[in-house]
Amino acid sequence: MKITGVELRHIAMPLVAPFRTSFGTATSREALLLRVVTDESEGWGECVAMAQPLYSSEYVDGAADALRRFLIPMILNQPEVDGPGVAEALAPVQGHRMAKAALEMGVLDAELRAAGRPFARELGATRDRVPCGVSVGIMDSIPALLDAVDDYLGQGYQRIKLKIEPGWDIMPVQAVRERFGDVLLQVDANTAYTLADARHLAKLDPFDLLLIEQPFDELDIVGHADLARLISTPVCLDESITSAQTAAAALRLGACSIINIKPGRVGGYLEARKIHDLCVANGVPVWCGGMLETGLGRAANIALAALPGFVLPGDISGSNRFYSTDITAPFILDDGYLRVPTGHGLGVEPIADELNAVTVATEWVSA
Amino acid sequence: MKITGVELRHIAMPLVAPFRTSFGTATSREALLLRVVTDESEGWGECVAMAQPLYSSEYVDGAADALRRFLIPMILNQPEVDGPGVAEALAPVQGHRMAKAALEMGVLDAELRAAGRPFARELGATRDRVPCGVSVGIMDSIPALLDAVDDYLGQGYQRIKLKIEPGWDIMPVQAVRERFGDVLLQVDANTAYTLADARHLAKLDPFDLLLIEQPFDELDIVGHADLARLISTPVCLDESITSAQTAAAALRLGACSIINIKPGRVGGYLEARKIHDLCVANGVPVWCGGMLETGLGRAANIALAALPGFVLPGDISGSNRFYSTDITAPFILDDGYLRVPTGHGLGVEPIADELNAVTVATEWVSA
Amino acid sequence: MKITGVELRHIAMPLVAPFRTSFGTATSREALLLRVVTDESEGWGECVAMAQPLYSSEYVDGAADALRRFLIPMILNQPEVDGPGVAEALAPVQGHRMAKAALEMGVLDAELRAAGRPFARELGATRDRVPCGVSVGIMDSIPALLDAVDDYLGQGYQRIKLKIEPGWDIMPVQAVRERFGDVLLQVDANTAYTLADARHLAKLDPFDLLLIEQPFDELDIVGHADLARLISTPVCLDESITSAQTAAAALRLGACSIINIKPGRVGGYLEARKIHDLCVANGVPVWCGGMLETGLGRAANIALAALPGFVLPGDISGSNRFYSTDITAPFILDDGYLRVPTGHGLGVEPIADELNAVTVATEWVSA
Amino acid sequence: MKITGVELRHIAMPLVAPFRTSFGTATSREALLLRVVTDESEGWGECVAMAQPLYSSEYVDGAADALRRFLIPMILNQPEVDGPGVAEALAPVQGHRMAKAALEMGVLDAELRAAGRPFARELGATRDRVPCGVSVGIMDSIPALLDAVDDYLGQGYQRIKLKIEPGWDIMPVQAVRERFGDVLLQVDANTAYTLADARHLAKLDPFDLLLIEQPFDELDIVGHADLARLISTPVCLDESITSAQTAAAALRLGACSIINIKPGRVGGYLEARKIHDLCVANGVPVWCGGMLETGLGRAANIALAALPGFVLPGDISGSNRFYSTDITAPFILDDGYLRVPTGHGLGVEPIADELNAVTVATEWVSA
Repeated sequence: MKITGVELRHIAMPLVAPFRTSFGTATSREALLLRVVTDESEGWGECVAMAQPLYSSEYVDGAADALRRFLIPMILNQPEVDGPGVAEALAPVQGHRMAKAALEMGVLDAELRAAGRPFARELGATRDRVPCGVSVGIMDSIPALLDAVDDYLGQGYQRIKLKIEPGWDIMPVQAVRERFGDVLLQVDANTAYTLADARHLAKLDPFDLLLIEQPFDELDIVGHADLARLISTPVCLDESITSAQTAAAALRLGACSIINIKPGRVGGYLEARKIHDLCVANGVPVWCGGMLETGLGRAANIALAALPGFVLPGDISGSNRFYSTDITAPFILDDGYLRVPTGHGLGVEPIADELNAVTVATEWVSA
Repeated sequence: MKITGVELRHIAMPLVAPFRTSFGTATSREALLLRVVTDESEGWGECVAMAQPLYSSEYVDGAADALRRFLIPMILNQPEVDGPGVAEALAPVQGHRMAKAALEMGVLDAELRAAGRPFARELGATRDRVPCGVSVGIMDSIPALLDAVDDYLGQGYQRIKLKIEPGWDIMPVQAVRERFGDVLLQVDANTAYTLADARHLAKLDPFDLLLIEQPFDELDIVGHADLARLISTPVCLDESITSAQTAAAALRLGACSIINIKPGRVGGYLEARKIHDLCVANGVPVWCGGMLETGLGRAANIALAALPGFVLPGDISGSNRFYSTDITAPFILDDGYLRVPTGHGLGVEPIADELNAVTVATEWVSA
Repeated sequence: MKITGVELRHIAMPLVAPFRTSFGTATSREALLLRVVTDESEGWGECVAMAQPLYSSEYVDGAADALRRFLIPMILNQPEVDGPGVAEALAPVQGHRMAKAALEMGVLDAELRAAGRPFARELGATRDRVPCGVSVGIMDSIPALLDAVDDYLGQGYQRIKLKIEPGWDIMPVQAVRERFGDVLLQVDANTAYTLADARHLAKLDPFDLLLIEQPFDELDIVGHADLARLISTPVCLDESITSAQTAAAALRLGACSIINIKPGRVGGYLEARKIHDLCVANGVPVWCGGMLETGLGRAANIALAALPGFVLPGDISGSNRFYSTDITAPFILDDGYLRVPTGHGLGVEPIADELNAVTVATEWVSA
Repeated sequence: MKITGVELRHIAMPLVAPFRTSFGTATSREALLLRVVTDESEGWGECVAMAQPLYSSEYVDGAADALRRFLIPMILNQPEVDGPGVAEALAPVQGHRMAKAALEMGVLDAELRAAGRPFARELGATRDRVPCGVSVGIMDSIPALLDAVDDYLGQGYQRIKLKIEPGWDIMPVQAVRERFGDVLLQVDANTAYTLADARHLAKLDPFDLLLIEQPFDELDIVGHADLARLISTPVCLDESITSAQTAAAALRLGACSIINIKPGRVGGYLEARKIHDLCVANGVPVWCGGMLETGLGRAANIALAALPGFVLPGDISGSNRFYSTDITAPFILDDGYLRVPTGHGLGVEPIADELNAVTVATEWVSA
């Protein structure tokens, strides 16, 4: 398969609720889509980088620049390329995993559509639907939080994840546990703590949480290993796991006993599968994280989460969790589950009108 | 001190010898300079990112974009800022350490020039000159290598570093050792190997090398710890060490017994000092790496290398190692040493004509 | 900068409450001040040694003798000296860290006053006020203790430290916890126990103390590591930590998870900063101890405690905790905090009349 | 036994060869003697502190001050005191081990003279003569070193110790080994190295040394443990071992496999015996160090070295190694051995004329 060119499409999807960061409040989710055009077919890739480099060093415009300037040309230079060849071709470039992942996703989708093969089959999925969990942000008050959780449970979500930070941790967990009994409950700290907070975090021990996600800085693997010995809540890593290699090291050091797999963060769905395989081999549960994906990325995540090692519900919500209108046919919860798409490639496609309505800019990169 | 604005200046410095990468051959060193203008003075920062993201994920245009879009505005937003406040103000942004380091360097230089204080004093330097080592790239043949080393030793360089990669490792080391006797000799692998090569790398043991630098992938800390137990050449880390925290973890895991400190890689000269202090406390030698800096970055590196823990000669060469004309007064080896600048701030300034001659573009970023 | 001479000033500051030691009851705090005179300015150093060698081997007259006989002449012999050069120049002399620290403080202050630069900036402080804790001695009875604690909390102190010893440990802690609820509470054993007391000390576990400070002999690092595995209260070291090197070793051995930094004990404010940096890199909280300093030493401690790793309130009290009249403008608690001085050097100066009123003897040491 | 008073006697013994330190060249050994007067007898103590605080923090005048001001009064305050009671009575004072040791030695000597009991019997000696080793300082040249060693071997010394420092280490060892074959040979580094020098020190491995003494800073126990894993020469500690407790910790950490016992350094002969007992229990050889003692201290050291665990020859030389005239009858080598004194107490006494000839000052301290 020969790549003819790649269209970069910068979009801005209106959010159902505004999103607060240290740079201000966002009312839409900016994202980058890739349309990979080959001599045989077209495929869609979605870059999960956010508008600002707050979750990782990548951001929408930076990813676009790296793709335009380095990554896409490296693929266009290949006489032939298929899904597994993308990571190898891009290996000389350090970092830029989300950008690489988007390009690999697009190439894979194009290849699978041409071959009439579903994404789930390519990854080795064994289930036809996946259980859904929801991530609940920091709220202004405990009552507001309880209302939100109540609503999500009503929609059928099977697991609740609470974002925590210093000042919003023990109390909200206690409140949710008291109100909703033994619901599956976990917390996500997004690196907001340090080892100095270990004793404070141990106060979460009595609440029988599924896990605490990424309490410390992403490079603080050793600190997470220390923490794992000091608290009884299982430690789960997110930002720290950027490849199968870093996953293997984290497991060996005892830095986590659960891993959140986000394909964009680790450089693509094929690397995500390797982490899944490694964790299954080590008896370590995994689950699939979310990055406010559109229907395209959501479809791919659902396919991944259908692999057998994904024994915990992921941050895989219905489209309406974030967007009143998706760019694909929306994913709608059915009894707390989402169906794994069975069509060729991703099994979903952008609806032209919806896509155009959110498009900010497009750019065509070719040889 | 209040920052008024920052000028980004993209330069291209002609190299005395072309430089080969996987993207082709470069005849100039592209780089980004920052002129930080405050209400009291001006300071210069230099971003060590290369034109392409091959050493790390950062590259010249990407760093410029992150600075323009996020980092400089974050500093302009501060009512008051001084050197130590820069890292804290920029902390919400993940990664982009070279860009952050350049901005911190510029702010520090401006502050120190206003205060009439040398960079070396600010860092706590205790020496007035530093010994120089030289890094020798992969050559086409052993005779060419021996000629190059002979030339560098003739210029007074006190330590030779050979770049190695699979296929160019044992033989060149043996040849240099045989020809030049007990010269201080070390090798740099720039992540070219994996743990599978441990037995091969053990063949370097008989040559009494000072160290082997960064043999494995930057995130493979555990692999380096394994290697350190399998070979007798001391393992030194470069790319893997991105902060005092990662340095502390690497030491704790036994992943290295020597650290190469590059201020750009770790987010700035103040973080570099912290790593120095940490290593001294642990009895671990450090040395100062180089990134083909202009006279500005070179001045700052020399100041850093004058701290007492820099017990090994650094990759601190004279300006003429890379550039026939520098943008500052050139640094010239004296008996194998370079003098630590004693003027205010960096103690050197760009020469307007030389600077303009290499300038590709300038841009003014203000509030 | 050239040092012209140093004035040693022995003072005796009347205490608001008498102080009991194994040598009797003291009604004043004897201390040694240094006035460092240079060709550019004058600076003040304060030696924290007590009148008797009970906390460490140093004492007021012994420190004066070491300064007069060895340390000051070593500095006067230097053609040029700045802050970072003091420790290096004095390195041949073993021990005498409090005396060395006082001399370095005086040189730094002189240098910074000449440079118009605040002590806090020199150390890298990032905050403009610091939270205050108070240390409460052994009392005659539990009611007297509760009254004292009540009074301190009323003054705004944010953290209570109880001195403990065999016979006065579990009971007072329990009484304070019961009476004052979840106030920040910690204990200080000043080496009064041995490993044989581990089971007894474990009886403190239920009281959720911030830390237990220096339970065993200062040289018993291994015993502290044993204890840390036997109790859940975090172990903090004070007397044991005499340098960044000993701090690094203690952390590596797991002998403590928190460090009390006293600049005098570790040889000066610059070594104190190194320990701070080392602890931050290792995720270990630090706090600033106190040695009944006058306003001079208090000003310097506040500057140090404004560094970002000082995440626990220090033994940094208002001047009136110990002295009805200070020799500088007094430090007065404001909402439980003290402001970081912003003037040049220490930012405070002795008031001539107050200083003379407490002066016992002065001596001028010059070349 | 009741102590009536103590005479402090400052002496200066002319040296047979000058002694170089960082403070200049000394042609005499300043020292402090104690004459302890009791209601039953008199005893002699010798303080091993040097004139300057270069080996440890103690120095002649500082020790005299601590004795006069704190230690002697603490003993005079006791209604009754015997040898074992001294350390306990002085325990509240931190450090000042050499001063304490001198006082304990004087009390013990007085008590044993009154009881008609030899020092050797009191300590538990089992031999009547001890083998002698000699310590050879840094020399100006290898030939001068070889001449000196040749001379000492001619006098019958059974073991040679070479002082080493960076720049004077591998070469002199190699030269002595080559010239004198398998003579018992060891080296003493007096803290001149750091862990960064481990590979350099490994170059001593081929020379089959008995031991390397105190290569690193006295507080760097962990560093010595690291070194012990990196070199094959056994590591011996001197300055680091200040008590039976620190000895136990060093053994547990693997920081040494041999200990040099100096009674002054550890606070007295009774603590020295405890370290001996601990080492024998752990299968660790010990030997007796020297501090240029007069005949008084020499007599006591010989008694100690006659204990069964002293399986290596000590730095126990004849009086003429340092002094052409001693203040007691001189100790003279007999076939490489010195006889253990059998008289009461130390078994030797000062000769009044010789003592007066070297006396600089005397002082009487009484209740």
